[in-house]
Amino acid sequence: MPLSRDFLDALSGLLSEGDLLTEPGDCWAYGYDNSKRHAAPDAVAFPREHDQVVSLVRLCNEHRVAITPRGRGTGTTGATVPTQGGLVLSLERMDRVLRVDPDNRVLVAQPGVTNLAIQQAAGAHGFFWPPDPTSAAVCTLGGNLAYNSAGPRAVKYGTPRENTLGLRAVTGAGESIRTGVMTTKGVVGYDLTRLIIGSEGTLAIITEAVLKLTPKPAARRTLQAIYADMASAAHAVAAIMAQPVVPCALEFIDGAAIEMIRRQAHADLPEGAGALLMIEVDGSPAGLDEAVREVMRAAEVAGCLSIKAAATQAEVEALWATRKALSPALRSIAPKKINEDVVVPVSRIPELIEGLGTLSRQHAITIVNFGHAGNGNIHVNLLINPDDPRQAAAAEHCLQEVFALVLRLDGTLSGEHGIGLVKRDFVALEIDAPTLALMHAIKRQFDPQGLLNPEKALPPAAAT
Amino acid sequence: MPLSRDFLDALSGLLSEGDLLTEPGDCWAYGYDNSKRHAAPDAVAFPREHDQVVSLVRLCNEHRVAITPRGRGTGTTGATVPTQGGLVLSLERMDRVLRVDPDNRVLVAQPGVTNLAIQQAAGAHGFFWPPDPTSAAVCTLGGNLAYNSAGPRAVKYGTPRENTLGLRAVTGAGESIRTGVMTTKGVVGYDLTRLIIGSEGTLAIITEAVLKLTPKPAARRTLQAIYADMASAAHAVAAIMAQPVVPCALEFIDGAAIEMIRRQAHADLPEGAGALLMIEVDGSPAGLDEAVREVMRAAEVAGCLSIKAAATQAEVEALWATRKALSPALRSIAPKKINEDVVVPVSRIPELIEGLGTLSRQHAITIVNFGHAGNGNIHVNLLINPDDPRQAAAAEHCLQEVFALVLRLDGTLSGEHGIGLVKRDFVALEIDAPTLALMHAIKRQFDPQGLLNPEKALPPAAAT
Repeated sequence: MPLSRDFLDALSGLLSEGDLLTEPGDCWAYGYDNSKRHAAPDAVAFPREHDQVVSLVRLCNEHRVAITPRGRGTGTTGATVPTQGGLVLSLERMDRVLRVDPDNRVLVAQPGVTNLAIQQAAGAHGFFWPPDPTSAAVCTLGGNLAYNSAGPRAVKYGTPRENTLGLRAVTGAGESIRTGVMTTKGVVGYDLTRLIIGSEGTLAIITEAVLKLTPKPAARRTLQAIYADMASAAHAVAAIMAQPVVPCALEFIDGAAIEMIRRQAHADLPEGAGALLMIEVDGSPAGLDEAVREVMRAAEVAGCLSIKAAATQAEVEALWATRKALSPALRSIAPKKINEDVVVPVSRIPELIEGLGTLSRQHAITIVNFGHAGNGNIHVNLLINPDDPRQAAAAEHCLQEVFALVLRLDGTLSGEHGIGLVKRDFVALEIDAPTLALMHAIKRQFDPQGLLNPEKALPPAAAT
Repeated sequence: MPLSRDFLDALSGLLSEGDLLTEPGDCWAYGYDNSKRHAAPDAVAFPREHDQVVSLVRLCNEHRVAITPRGRGTGTTGATVPTQGGLVLSLERMDRVLRVDPDNRVLVAQPGVTNLAIQQAAGAHGFFWPPDPTSAAVCTLGGNLAYNSAGPRAVKYGTPRENTLGLRAVTGAGESIRTGVMTTKGVVGYDLTRLIIGSEGTLAIITEAVLKLTPKPAARRTLQAIYADMASAAHAVAAIMAQPVVPCALEFIDGAAIEMIRRQAHADLPEGAGALLMIEVDGSPAGLDEAVREVMRAAEVAGCLSIKAAATQAEVEALWATRKALSPALRSIAPKKINEDVVVPVSRIPELIEGLGTLSRQHAITIVNFGHAGNGNIHVNLLINPDDPRQAAAAEHCLQEVFALVLRLDGTLSGEHGIGLVKRDFVALEIDAPTLALMHAIKRQFDPQGLLNPEKALPPAAAT
């Protein structure tokens, strides 16, 4: 149903010149995200202030127009694809760091600021904000909070939920709310901050966030450890996580990935390498040698073929080169590969990798795994061409079994990508009916008309 | 209104022999907590299993009987005082550690386990659970989660919200739910785990919790720094928090407290001491000397009179003796003192202490302050006798102004004690009406009949 003239007139009255798109050709690009899914929005608004967001949401409530909040579209799950058309609310022009307060380790920013800009603003004072998605240069704070996006550093420093103190937001009903505190402790009222973080823009639109900063460690060391098989590498991960020095990155790639890198990039990897760990340790220079030794001791389990520590920046880059060769290699083989980001308890990683090997053979699909081993967060890549109906059908069956395997291993379907459109049919496998019903009931309190990012994050209420 | 015969018969049918109290004399003690407030419960049930809690809550829903969940009654806000009578649900017999899983840094326990028992079970594997309230030997996990209780270690290791992965719980409607995950990452569905943590038993009764463990640091050092005045000490706190070595405790006591200790305990404190910091730094032995030097450098701001580092365990105890002399000194002067636990941003601590000094003079009330400086979490002690109506009235006026001051400084009314009964009239000063209305709406989804810990945590819905 196209938007009414009345609605469009009122909409343009709420926005400055140039902050509204209504031509289909102009709106088209705002219907995508990095899931490659698409639906055309009827209009795209670029608010610049909290109060404008309030007015826009209230207007959409009066006219029953769906609202899809959006950062920069780097999400991989279709969470910002406006499946019902309506209004895309792009937060990209609310892009100011409002305050950096080093004495209180706090940074206040609008949702359209990129992760990189936050790191730069904090870095000028010797601090950083821990969440570090690969897309940091482009992705926005609002998106990081919407998905609770993390990255390698989460193993030591946590996700947005552990690094955000409070929010200003607008509910789906157009109510202006403030959640949380300006301090690192606070127990007044219910924790709406974490409830909104990770809710994929289905409860409220974040217009301002109070971020908890962490001082930058003075030094960092990089290690690369190679194992005969995934089981040995997983034992090393558990051993590393059981001693007191927590690495600031503990990444792995599996044997299939190593094979791929070897073929595509001629990397310097020993024959028989079944798994590789990239380990980084940070801290003050005085204790770092000993910290690295402790981590190396833990990493030297049976099946460890080699451990190298980089001594220079050039060596750091050489060690990471192997890991970084992986993504181009994967893209060249399967540009439209499926990339899941399941999580299992660290000790169950070998069972997961073994199970994935079986599924790979059963469904005749190459599966390559890498990811954030310290959190058990595994990126499972199905190298298929989804435009081939036979491959697409096989992938669909295979994915069902991947998810069932993950849940049997006490895992969860997503560690940082979220649900969006693409995984919503699987949510009820993980969350039981009464808990899901409660989530739907909460959704209705924030958004009684169901206008805020409809069809995302939760399965349809009827299905619960 | 006394409980009906029907209800009591059904109740006793759900519990084992000896797990139900109905004699007023037997129930009386379960009407108190450490706020010294009291209301008599009509019955006290001691469930031993999750399914019993489900049945008990459903029964109470059928008969519209109020339910007050309870750990060991060490809370200070009256949150477990059954103001409407009805059923006290004591979780103290659900006291098992169900699983310690060191490979995955996870411990699963029932709510009635004491914090100490958790530390012992985790400690046997080289781990600990960070929340460390002073009452750790007695207080229960359920209570720690209900109030999001922390303690000195929170400055480095966070509160229960940062150290809990998932929950099993029973809503006020008697629905059995599971929230969160068994892993350190997970973004499927809304974050009900943190919503329930800190909700003071008003949304759901926690029957099982998955705790995230942290490896025990190999070594710890203790420092004591003395300052001419509170402003200097607060600058030192900000300087310590701005460098990369985060202490595992950063506690302070103010000049009034020092004066009190000097008079009562003849402690070894220099003349003119206006504030004292206790600082602990933990980590691996290799880096600890340098880490301590970095913290000492940061602590040596203008106004620093002395810094002592303990070299032996005896010296550690001597340094802490001063701090530990404070509570007995306070109790001997004002056994029924009011102890608030407000929080302000670290850089605002001097303004808070100065403002409290002014209020102390205006209201002729001795105010003594100490607490968790690294979090800005200040225990404000009003040394009054509440049984004297004039002192009680003065304290009430003074408290109003203390809270107004805290909020002017961007602070929050409670850092770890919570709201319970005693602060609920002040909540609306901090949380705006639309946000409070949303909290009430969420409460109704968990507890449609309003039976679960009524009159706690939030002000009455009508007042919002």
